[in-house]
Formats: sequence, C-alpha cells, structure tokens
Amino acid sequence: MRVLAGEVVEPPPLWIMRQAGRYLPEYRATRLRAGSFLDLCYTPALAAEVTMQPIRRFDLDAAILFSDILVVPDALGQEVRFVEGRGPVLEPLGGRLPGLDPAQLMKRLAPILETVRLVRAALAADKALIGFCGAPWTVATYMIAGQGSADQAVARRLALNDPSRLGALVATLVDASARYLVAQIEAGADVVKIFDSWAGILDEEGFERWAVAPMADLVGRVRAAAPRTPIIVFPKGAGARLGRYAEVVGADAVAVDWTVPMRTARELVAEPVALQGNLDPLRLVAGGRALRDGVDAILAAMRGRPHIFNLGHGIVPETPVEHVSELVARVRGGAP
Amino acid sequence: MRVLAGEVVEPPPLWIMRQAGRYLPEYRATRLRAGSFLDLCYTPALAAEVTMQPIRRFDLDAAILFSDILVVPDALGQEVRFVEGRGPVLEPLGGRLPGLDPAQLMKRLAPILETVRLVRAALAADKALIGFCGAPWTVATYMIAGQGSADQAVARRLALNDPSRLGALVATLVDASARYLVAQIEAGADVVKIFDSWAGILDEEGFERWAVAPMADLVGRVRAAAPRTPIIVFPKGAGARLGRYAEVVGADAVAVDWTVPMRTARELVAEPVALQGNLDPLRLVAGGRALRDGVDAILAAMRGRPHIFNLGHGIVPETPVEHVSELVARVRGGAP
Repeated sequence: MRVLAGEVVEPPPLWIMRQAGRYLPEYRATRLRAGSFLDLCYTPALAAEVTMQPIRRFDLDAAILFSDILVVPDALGQEVRFVEGRGPVLEPLGGRLPGLDPAQLMKRLAPILETVRLVRAALAADKALIGFCGAPWTVATYMIAGQGSADQAVARRLALNDPSRLGALVATLVDASARYLVAQIEAGADVVKIFDSWAGILDEEGFERWAVAPMADLVGRVRAAAPRTPIIVFPKGAGARLGRYAEVVGADAVAVDWTVPMRTARELVAEPVALQGNLDPLRLVAGGRALRDGVDAILAAMRGRPHIFNLGHGIVPETPVEHVSELVARVRGGAP
Repeated sequence: MRVLAGEVVEPPPLWIMRQAGRYLPEYRATRLRAGSFLDLCYTPALAAEVTMQPIRRFDLDAAILFSDILVVPDALGQEVRFVEGRGPVLEPLGGRLPGLDPAQLMKRLAPILETVRLVRAALAADKALIGFCGAPWTVATYMIAGQGSADQAVARRLALNDPSRLGALVATLVDASARYLVAQIEAGADVVKIFDSWAGILDEEGFERWAVAPMADLVGRVRAAAPRTPIIVFPKGAGARLGRYAEVVGADAVAVDWTVPMRTARELVAEPVALQGNLDPLRLVAGGRALRDGVDAILAAMRGRPHIFNLGHGIVPETPVEHVSELVARVRGGAP
C-alpha cells in the first residue's frame, strides 16, 4: 500500500500473478473437490481457501482474489465453460449483444464478493487483498471470438469492420466492470488490478481507441466511487507504448510484462506511478542461477523507484514450489 | 535501393511480406502442382514462378524469394515437414545437435540459389530482389521444440537451463545463415532480410544474448563478405527495445511490426537507418476506411524519413486481392 502511494520501499513488497494455482498441490486438491473451474470461482468457501493457500505457504505481501476475468461475461448472461486442455469456451454471441442489468449482474457476482469478504476477514491486517477484473478490450476479444487464440484476430477484425458494434460491447463492459470493481472494494479489496492481456496486439489507432480510452474511462469511474483505493493496470505487450498508456489511463501502478526491461519501463512511465514486475515466469521454472540473476537484475534496475516485485506474467503450472520459496527469500534479501 | 542507402523517397517504395502466397489464386494453383510445401521451395521453376506472380499482378518495387526460414534446419539435416492446419513439424533433435558441413549445406540449398538466379533474370532492372533467412534464435526455437507454439517456451527454457547447448546451436545457425545469405547475394539477391519473428518473447538478458548478439554477428559476417548489399532486419515484438536492437545489430533498415507506432519507431531508431512497415495485415483484409486511414497515418508519420512501405506482418490468406491493388494505389498516391 505504501508503494502504491508512491513511496520507495526497499526491499520491495512482492506477490505473484496466479499465485493461487495449479503449481500448488493443495490447489489441485481443492480444485478436484469443486467440480468445474467456474464452480470453484463461484463457491466462496473454496475460492477463499485457494486464495489463502499461497499466503500460508509463502511470505507474500498480498493475496489476490481467486477468480477469472471471464466471470463478467458469464454474469452478463454469455455462458462460459472452461474446457480442459482448450481453455475458455463462450456461448456464441450471434447477432445480439449482452445488455447490462445491474441488479442481475450483481446477483450473479455475489458469490465472488462473498469470497472477498471471507478472504479479507482471514487475512492478516498487514497483507493487502487485491481484487481484479479484465480490461474491456481483453474481455471483449473472448466474448466476440467465443474463445482465445494466438492473435485474437476475430475481435481485431470486428474492430475494423464494425467499430460501432464493438464500441457498444466495450461500453457495456466498462460499466459492468466499474460496478464489479467498486463492489469488490466495498466488500474489502484494498487494491484493484485490471488485466489488459491483449492490449499489445492492437495497432496504433486500435490501441488508443480500444485499449487506452476504455481503460481510462474504467479507471476514472472506479476512482470517482472509491478515490482512496489504488488501481494497478497491466497492459500486456504494450512495449514502447507503456508510457502513453500510463499517462492517459491514470492508474497508481503499471504492471510490466517480462519483455520490457524494467530500466526502460522506468524511463517510459513518469513518476510517481509505481511499477510492478517483471521476472520471466520461466526463470522461476528454471530456478538456480537463471532465477537469481533475473531477480537481482530487476532489483538493481528499480532501486529508488516505487516498485512491487512480481512476475512479468502468471506463474506456470510446472513451476517447482521450492523455487517460489527461493524467489521470496531472494527478493526479501534486497538488491545485491 | 535508394531508401536503403538512406535517401528519402516520397511516396515511398513498397512491397508486402508474404506477397507470394495463399491469398493469390495463381499461387494456390501452382502450389497444387508442386506436391509438398517444401517441394515447392526446392523446385526452382515453380518457386520462381510464385515469386514473380505478385510482381505481375501489382505495381510492387521488390520481389521476395519464395522460400521458408526452415529450409536451413532442413539443409542441416533436421528433416522438416509442413502439415496442413498444423504448420511445420521438425524431426526431434534428441541429444544431438546438427553440425555444419558447408559443402553439404550448399548442396541442399542449391535449388533455392537457382530460384534466385531465375527470378533475377526474369525481374525488371528497376525492381529489387530480396533474399532472406530466419534469425538464429527464431530458427533455433523451431529446431528445439520441433514445432511452433504461442510462446516458444521449450526453447526459452533451454536458454535458461542449458545456455551452452543453445549457444552451440545458435553458433551453427549464425555460420550456416551467413553462408546462405552470401550465396543468395552471389546468385543475384539485391537485398537480404533476416526475420527474427520470436525476438520479442525474450526477457532483457535473453534478448541481448539470443536475439541481439547472434544477429549482430550474422549481419557482420554478411557485411564482411558483401559490403554493398543492404540488410533489413525484422525483430518482431521488440517494442521498446527496437532502438537498442537497431543500434547494436547495425542493419541498413529495421522492419517494424504493427504494434509499434511508426512515429515511435522513428524516435527509437537513429538515422540514417531506414524503417520498413507497418500496416496491420487485418486492415488489408478489412479494406475500405480501415485500410485508407491506416495507410495515410503511416505515410504521414514517416514523411521526411527513409521509409519502405510494407505490412507489419505477413499478408493473411483471407486477404481480398482487390484490397492489395487499393493498397498499392493509396501508397503510390503519397501522404494526403
């Protein structure tokens, strides 16, 4: 929380994207009890349990709500399923677009807000609870295509062929996401993070229109309702456009993927915006020198700047648990 | 060639990545006659024919050799097949690494050099012939994994777990690729381009070691043997690292993917290096206003800087042929 207020804290606080997940045996055990992946997201006792699992095992500074960015389309009435080995599959939109019925949306998302309450009650006072949602553009790419892909071309083509249709969908998502994030804050989230996993796939005009502008709108709405809650944004793949994104969107922190050197991110993003990141998740799989060198380089590059240590993308299932312990110890040791 | 020598030419010259390909009915007809995809690459009369097809149809300033970056591993003895709907499949490397027998390599690549001779003889004197190969890192990612993937994690893990093994493979590829490019130049290529399609997936240290350093080595070797032949490099996904890449690699031009605004590329890459790019290929699929606005924005951003107009990635098979004609006319019309 201090770093998100613009303070330099050394060594930096840390948490890990997807820290509750398949690399943990206790997660896999809970997952088996839950039924489907979305059943797990919608069952507060179990979702709170998996949110807390990494906190019990490792000395992390924050818990992140266990959920998925696609609960928003699901709550808007576009049914989502997670198919083993294939990822999310969404009911085809066809000609219609989901409309927003705020009461209905909140009714469907109520179990997730209950999870937030359970986790905040269980979490030590000195640990932050991070709520989250997907960015409007990123969520829209899945809603339009009905699934993920390597380049999200279906949504990118709609952006070029029928921008008013995409615009209507994105506007609905801005509204729904703002309500959802504010509700998470009211339920106890100390921080919210917005994941724009597909921001980087857009060209210059598309980036401004579909990534930057809706994100600025969303951040502004959450800010208006909850002015004291810090907001982290993650424009994955933004690369050279990280500075522009940070400037216009106006978040308290920008999460940086592993392909932008932190030194460069530091130059691109004006202070006092904090930076989060950005160890290559495969360094955490590799361990040993690859892990140590990667951590040390990031700590050295960020000395003197508000920084939250994290990976540059989600932890991968094949990560050895003991490497996570090593990572935490290395970060706690500070820059060499 | 004038732009590659650092001259500003307005309107800029243009060609299109993958301009010989599946969007053209005459290509699909020739492809059917050839047998496998690699048979087409290795049959000089047919490969020369498909290289020339887009030149006959459109007013383009350059032909690019019809071939594939994976002919190098194939010529090194790691068998490559192209499986419909799945992409390239390479024989598993197992414990061994391919060694370089220069005579054997050149014998296997001889049909491609014959294609270069046929095309140069058929091409008008005012059109450039572009030869190419894949960058050592990019080619290595396929050789190691035996196929492509969304994140080339198999090769990235080898880079962290066994850098000396990857280093040996990359060194072989630098050597083989330098010989191959110099042979293309001797056979009549006016320009060579090196495609580093997976440069962007690496983190800071990996980018320096596996993308920048081998590319600088390769460019240096080609330069030493053929000092008057311009070299274009394409570090896809380099983003904010484009300037660093250009500075160290020392090519005559840097091709820019569609995710970096040309205005930003212009700031990042120091003159007199020319820039190539970077229309989103999906704008060419969409046509109409999306196409016109995209072209105009790029022309406006590049006024006064040595620039070769191109897409920001390869043309996609579903591109309507008439949109390509519109693109050419719009670029020939110059900045509005």
